[in-house]
Amino acid sequence: MVRILISGANRGIGLEFVRQWLGRTDARIFATARRPQQAGELLSLAGPQLTVLPMDVSDPASVRAAVARVADSVDSLDLLVNNAAIKPPDSEQRLATLDPDSMLQTLQVNSLGPLLLAQACLPLLRRGVRPRLINISSGMGSLTRKGSGGQYAYCSSKAALNMVTRGLAADLGPSGIIVCSLHPGWVRTEMGGMQASLSTKESVQALLRVIDSLTPADNGGYLDQERETIPW
Amino acid sequence: MVRILISGANRGIGLEFVRQWLGRTDARIFATARRPQQAGELLSLAGPQLTVLPMDVSDPASVRAAVARVADSVDSLDLLVNNAAIKPPDSEQRLATLDPDSMLQTLQVNSLGPLLLAQACLPLLRRGVRPRLINISSGMGSLTRKGSGGQYAYCSSKAALNMVTRGLAADLGPSGIIVCSLHPGWVRTEMGGMQASLSTKESVQALLRVIDSLTPADNGGYLDQERETIPW
Repeated sequence: MVRILISGANRGIGLEFVRQWLGRTDARIFATARRPQQAGELLSLAGPQLTVLPMDVSDPASVRAAVARVADSVDSLDLLVNNAAIKPPDSEQRLATLDPDSMLQTLQVNSLGPLLLAQACLPLLRRGVRPRLINISSGMGSLTRKGSGGQYAYCSSKAALNMVTRGLAADLGPSGIIVCSLHPGWVRTEMGGMQASLSTKESVQALLRVIDSLTPADNGGYLDQERETIPW
Repeated sequence: MVRILISGANRGIGLEFVRQWLGRTDARIFATARRPQQAGELLSLAGPQLTVLPMDVSDPASVRAAVARVADSVDSLDLLVNNAAIKPPDSEQRLATLDPDSMLQTLQVNSLGPLLLAQACLPLLRRGVRPRLINISSGMGSLTRKGSGGQYAYCSSKAALNMVTRGLAADLGPSGIIVCSLHPGWVRTEMGGMQASLSTKESVQALLRVIDSLTPADNGGYLDQERETIPW
């Protein structure tokens, strides 16, 4: 059995992860959403393999409560996927029209949230089999590649998340937990837009190949869906 | 005349910048502190060359108010040094004992604050002579070099600040403003501790050499006090 927890599973890449794991009969999935009652498609998949839980990663108490419910059902986790993230409208992220509250909220959800969830899951991950902790980052978090203006909130939050990955890799690598930032590619979701090059199905198929193939040598890495290393 | 605005000038590196600029008779300095009434040494330096202003970079209204007072005195800025920053105690930044509020506040002050101050200063910087926008970052913001755990708040905030540098460099480079992240070295301050290798005087002397030497080729760069490029 592979025990999995994923955040932000109400739509897009998160929902597709759940769909594809459900095709693996040995997967036991815990999927969270901020408002599960509004995640009709996710709820419709719930059953013996899948438990849907409410969790707001910007609220430490909500994170702890969700993980406590996971711990009621299983005594270990093999895979944590920090997928929940927000991306403000471009206008709120432009220099001229920057919305400070929106930027702070983006940092809270995208950078601090994954760290809080990782912290809460640690006792379960430490008992996992070949435990992996995946932070769904973005190529837009690459300082090296950043060549255009704007997008301050989203890009900063993913650079900060990548630093969380680096810290967790150093803290947890010695105990055998593999920590990685993964870039899902440019995906046709509400966030990526309809001009993007990959379907959610293609992206998640590729990401699962990467996740399945991770070894301790990948700890602290930043990989795209084709397993190419992205420069920080 | 060189018109300069620096934040966080109440102590440490910020205060030393002010001291050294005062030795240049053509410098007109605006130095901010969250609580100037508690910054006795800075206040004692105020005079025709130096104006001390209250500013809390975590408060957008306070940032706008301070810059409005600068604009009452000068119609341009040649140099903005985003120096104000906080570093929580190590215990608040460790995985086991992480303080979420402290991390969020660190991101707000160290990453968002410099962006808000840059935004507010833009009209003045656009009229500056050889205008430069310096973000005082840290080697601890280097994802490449991060090899130990802990320090989640500070390291993440500096990685996010470096992304702000990258965005500003792309947005402002075309209009001739040079934007850089600078690492001051390991300095004997309240933040750096007393075992550090450089005095504030040595660090700021070196940083001023770097700032004076910046060319458009350095736009978007991440340099240490010896002018060496730090890998992202």
